[in-house]
Amino acid sequence: MNFTEKLLAAAQKNRSLLCVGLDPDPNLLPKGVGVLEFNKKIIDSTSDLVCAYKLNLAFYEALDSGFDVLKQTVKYIPDDIITIGDGKRADIGNTSRAYASSIFDNLNFDAATVNPYLGFDSIEPFLKYTRKGVFILCRTSNAGAVDFQSLPCETESGLRPLFEVVALKAEEWNTYGNIGLVIGATYPEELRLLRQAHPDMPILIPGIGAQGGDLSLAVRYGVDKMGQKAIINSSRQIIYASRGEDFAEAARRVASALRDQINSCLSTRG
Amino acid sequence: MNFTEKLLAAAQKNRSLLCVGLDPDPNLLPKGVGVLEFNKKIIDSTSDLVCAYKLNLAFYEALDSGFDVLKQTVKYIPDDIITIGDGKRADIGNTSRAYASSIFDNLNFDAATVNPYLGFDSIEPFLKYTRKGVFILCRTSNAGAVDFQSLPCETESGLRPLFEVVALKAEEWNTYGNIGLVIGATYPEELRLLRQAHPDMPILIPGIGAQGGDLSLAVRYGVDKMGQKAIINSSRQIIYASRGEDFAEAARRVASALRDQINSCLSTRG
Repeated sequence: MNFTEKLLAAAQKNRSLLCVGLDPDPNLLPKGVGVLEFNKKIIDSTSDLVCAYKLNLAFYEALDSGFDVLKQTVKYIPDDIITIGDGKRADIGNTSRAYASSIFDNLNFDAATVNPYLGFDSIEPFLKYTRKGVFILCRTSNAGAVDFQSLPCETESGLRPLFEVVALKAEEWNTYGNIGLVIGATYPEELRLLRQAHPDMPILIPGIGAQGGDLSLAVRYGVDKMGQKAIINSSRQIIYASRGEDFAEAARRVASALRDQINSCLSTRG
Repeated sequence: MNFTEKLLAAAQKNRSLLCVGLDPDPNLLPKGVGVLEFNKKIIDSTSDLVCAYKLNLAFYEALDSGFDVLKQTVKYIPDDIITIGDGKRADIGNTSRAYASSIFDNLNFDAATVNPYLGFDSIEPFLKYTRKGVFILCRTSNAGAVDFQSLPCETESGLRPLFEVVALKAEEWNTYGNIGLVIGATYPEELRLLRQAHPDMPILIPGIGAQGGDLSLAVRYGVDKMGQKAIINSSRQIIYASRGEDFAEAARRVASALRDQINSCLSTRG
């Protein structure tokens, strides 16, 4: 099964486009709960409500033995749920091979996020894992996204913002059919235009919840014609729903409500 | 002492603009030599010949217990030599804080490389470590650098390639005076123009040796008016000079020859 097939199956089985971001911050965990234990309880309480888990590597690098925790967390996630290694990596060719190997061979993620600034040969080592998904940063969810991504660039078809050029290149490079785009829910109009221009690509959508993106627009503009191929991520809103002993139950309540909201937006999108 | 002062002192003490890239590939190490032992012997045999060591995080992530090896290697490098954590990281604000903390607090590097695609708020958490150096990817050394970095972008002063816009923004964001640029030796003309436009910034220059960049042009075009503030990196050419038991001596011979070549280019640059 390739990445897209696995994604569609996971979304269908749990009737969910929701992705939970497992981004553990030791300062925000319930007292006396270790990171791995925290992750496992969140997974136990939400794995029937999601299509994917996204693990941001930064939070694990900052821990002692973080890579062990990362590896054990990925291993603990049920096999039929997508795992995304969110490292936003990219380097020159021989070095990107090492990153790709770390994320796909060693940590065994189903998908990775990569940064396009270094160009094709920095992304190709990831793409060569043809059964894995590769999400290229296109329009990120942060305020600084406008600094370079909005720059009007000269192309054969006139001036276009850099993020559009990145998406066009992603389409051109998609020989193995395993490329997706990262587009923040905080830029709904860009999401709408990019989905129109790229009807078949999976889109990973961060930025709802703590970052302020509008959920209903993320769903309406992010999904494909079949109401699929959007992965809507929420991290802090779910995993820190409660910081007491009931953190796992609280996470389940929020995740369940978000899934239902997403499905309700889907059914009314007309 | 801030980053630039430490860099100038290290370069002066060893009369060297050379940086050795400690990028250990287990497949290329001499038989029976572990990565940490390898690094320590290379450091022992070269630390009087360099201004800096650059450690690419990808190679450590790919190892078991790689972050321990990384940390112990940084600790082993003499205090008066610059250490650069080459991770090309960047993420949205709260996540970039975790990366910056990992590289500067936990691993204790003197400098980091960062990717500009996500804009200012992704780089700011690094900049706030005002005594550390932050090298922004500008013109990378790989072939794919042209894919996006060469795109003509509309600016107030007309069309300029993206990498020039990145360098201009870097200058604008340099409130703490701790920003540098990464410019590959494989693009000497771009290096020349960027140095002219940014006479005071430290420039980290990868791409000589295995990647084919011209050393004399890297020196001539990369240094500032005083013949300083260029950090010329070589990795594979030095650390894999021999794959036998004499690897450390061989690394010293190549490093010494490179330092002398750099100094000879400096003295004849007119």
